Amino acid sequence: MEKFILYNPVKLHFGKGVTQKLGKYAPDYGKKALLIYGKGSVKKNGSYDQVIRSLSEAGIEIVEYAGIKPNPVVEDADRAADLGRSEGVDMIVAVGGGSVIDSAKYISLGIPAGHSCWDFATGKRKPAASLPLLGVLTIAATGSEMNMFGVIQSDKEKRKIGYGHPLMFPKHSFLDPSFTISVPADHTAYGIVDLVAHSLEGWFGDGEASLTDRFIVSILKEAVEYGPALIRKPADYRLRAKIMFAATMALNGLTSTGKKSGDWGVHAIGHCMSVLWDIPHGATLSIAFPAWMKLQKERIPERIDRLGREVFGTSGPGKAIEAFENFFSFLGSPLKISETGKGSGNTSQKELVEVMKINKAGGYVHELNEEDYSFLAKEMI
Amino acid sequence: MEKFILYNPVKLHFGKGVTQKLGKYAPDYGKKALLIYGKGSVKKNGSYDQVIRSLSEAGIEIVEYAGIKPNPVVEDADRAADLGRSEGVDMIVAVGGGSVIDSAKYISLGIPAGHSCWDFATGKRKPAASLPLLGVLTIAATGSEMNMFGVIQSDKEKRKIGYGHPLMFPKHSFLDPSFTISVPADHTAYGIVDLVAHSLEGWFGDGEASLTDRFIVSILKEAVEYGPALIRKPADYRLRAKIMFAATMALNGLTSTGKKSGDWGVHAIGHCMSVLWDIPHGATLSIAFPAWMKLQKERIPERIDRLGREVFGTSGPGKAIEAFENFFSFLGSPLKISETGKGSGNTSQKELVEVMKINKAGGYVHELNEEDYSFLAKEMI
Repeated sequence: MEKFILYNPVKLHFGKGVTQKLGKYAPDYGKKALLIYGKGSVKKNGSYDQVIRSLSEAGIEIVEYAGIKPNPVVEDADRAADLGRSEGVDMIVAVGGGSVIDSAKYISLGIPAGHSCWDFATGKRKPAASLPLLGVLTIAATGSEMNMFGVIQSDKEKRKIGYGHPLMFPKHSFLDPSFTISVPADHTAYGIVDLVAHSLEGWFGDGEASLTDRFIVSILKEAVEYGPALIRKPADYRLRAKIMFAATMALNGLTSTGKKSGDWGVHAIGHCMSVLWDIPHGATLSIAFPAWMKLQKERIPERIDRLGREVFGTSGPGKAIEAFENFFSFLGSPLKISETGKGSGNTSQKELVEVMKINKAGGYVHELNEEDYSFLAKEMI
Repeated sequence: MEKFILYNPVKLHFGKGVTQKLGKYAPDYGKKALLIYGKGSVKKNGSYDQVIRSLSEAGIEIVEYAGIKPNPVVEDADRAADLGRSEGVDMIVAVGGGSVIDSAKYISLGIPAGHSCWDFATGKRKPAASLPLLGVLTIAATGSEMNMFGVIQSDKEKRKIGYGHPLMFPKHSFLDPSFTISVPADHTAYGIVDLVAHSLEGWFGDGEASLTDRFIVSILKEAVEYGPALIRKPADYRLRAKIMFAATMALNGLTSTGKKSGDWGVHAIGHCMSVLWDIPHGATLSIAFPAWMKLQKERIPERIDRLGREVFGTSGPGKAIEAFENFFSFLGSPLKISETGKGSGNTSQKELVEVMKINKAGGYVHELNEEDYSFLAKEMI
């Protein structure tokens, strides 16, 4: 087991109606909030109304910034930060999925800093302060609600970057599974794929950490047992709660503790697809993970075999990969880019290889070279 | 899954040499520390020297209070709090096992309050402030290093009470498994039993929380796989690290999240044995848990059966209980009070029933009545 620091100060409130407590905690941080959300689903699932009511009753003044994209762009974060700065807000309230909370993390750094949030992502400048962030989660997927990481992309630079800093931890996150009941089938599936992929990035990380591996398998088994059930019964609160909690636990530190690092190569590959074709994040991962495991099949056969054994009861790395493919398929998440209607054929393959090269796509543990890119692109198209 | 709040702001530093970082963080909290430890084992395992060196190099003035007992008493906590108050210390540094860290939590409340720490434990008064607490753990067992709970007893009142408050969270905890290498075989075993018992209290808690159950089983399997190995190879750093990490995870929230509550009846029974005969906490639990499971065998057979199946691969509640008995025995922890050389015969049985009555021993979920006390006392003597 490697040396590690385990630290996660997020206060997570979970269950039906917890968002009503927003107004209890918000006054701890000031009087004026920048309310951030996406393209309006929050107005359909009831979260927006609950947030407005709870903050208003607590006397919190609200400034809104709407329209954060599913693959969030830094241009939005910068505009929102400018708005928040000129309005003199004291805190940020983010209502939505991972893209909204990720964006809010950058905005919380950008408001006091006064320069583009992209400079944090690229490492050009270090954050010195952040505005308090309160999150209201409406999609189970990224785990952003309980960690210090955020992914953002620059359309101009064709780059998508994941970055983290302790100043980016939300102060509070409110998770009411009933808000996720209206998430459509495809995005419900992508969320499940995302939490599975986070667990797998830990599994394929570096360093022996047996208890962490057991936690990873626990989360994976939860997804495998209840994910397909949820796809069949999307309005089942109990199943929504199980998947929402599993998604949080898949990326709050538990799946990497004691490892030198997770791998994150598959996420890097997925980000390239998002940058090129704006494919939803979860969909890129159900495409990339089986392809990546096929690439690694001869290199780390035991690790892939053991994963399949413990999660699905399969035998052999080939059967393990097949089980994941079947699982993703059953959820309704694509295994090939062509299924998304975006890229296809030789030209797309070449484009994808090119973007992987520009982004130096690869894992912390399992590096990838140009030959690997070609294998992956061919496998994924 | 029940509504829950998941919140744990402790910064946990894990690995060889991490105690050297104490001096990096202590100056954040002031200039003068009350250093608390037990009966001197910290001077043999190297932790004391490292702490003194690290604090001194950071310019922290040190006041010492030594002699905290293995089953810590409130009289010590009150004396230490008086010392800390009169010396005007800014923080508390606790070096030792769960008893020292538990005591330090009460002392951290007692210094600003100015009255006996017992009033917090009994609920007579509520804490309003606490001094910052930094812990250096030298025994893997209680999990106190990463939670807000502390157990303390009053010899005068023959009561042992567990109490918790968010002000009792340590700010930092430093876990160097190499300090635990000198822990003798019996206390190594008691520590393993303790972490197993914490997981079991979660397992026998109330409310469906499937992922939490999987985490519990993960921790139990870790203890079952590496606990006996550690007893055979007590100087193995890798095994010490695994058990130390498992002990922390067994009581930092992970084993109760989403449940209405853990049971904690077995701990209540164990506390009665400690009050009566000063039997080490872990030893009381290897005596009490099998007896308690025998009592519950007809009441919750499926739950006991499933536990045995998942942890040991046994079939039927009887075999599950047997597997736990064999496991505890192999570790070298007692199954009967008479093995400890303390209580035996009818008189002891009656005394124990009496103390269980005084303490209203029982669980939050599975209540116990006088008939149960008699069954348990007979079974445990």
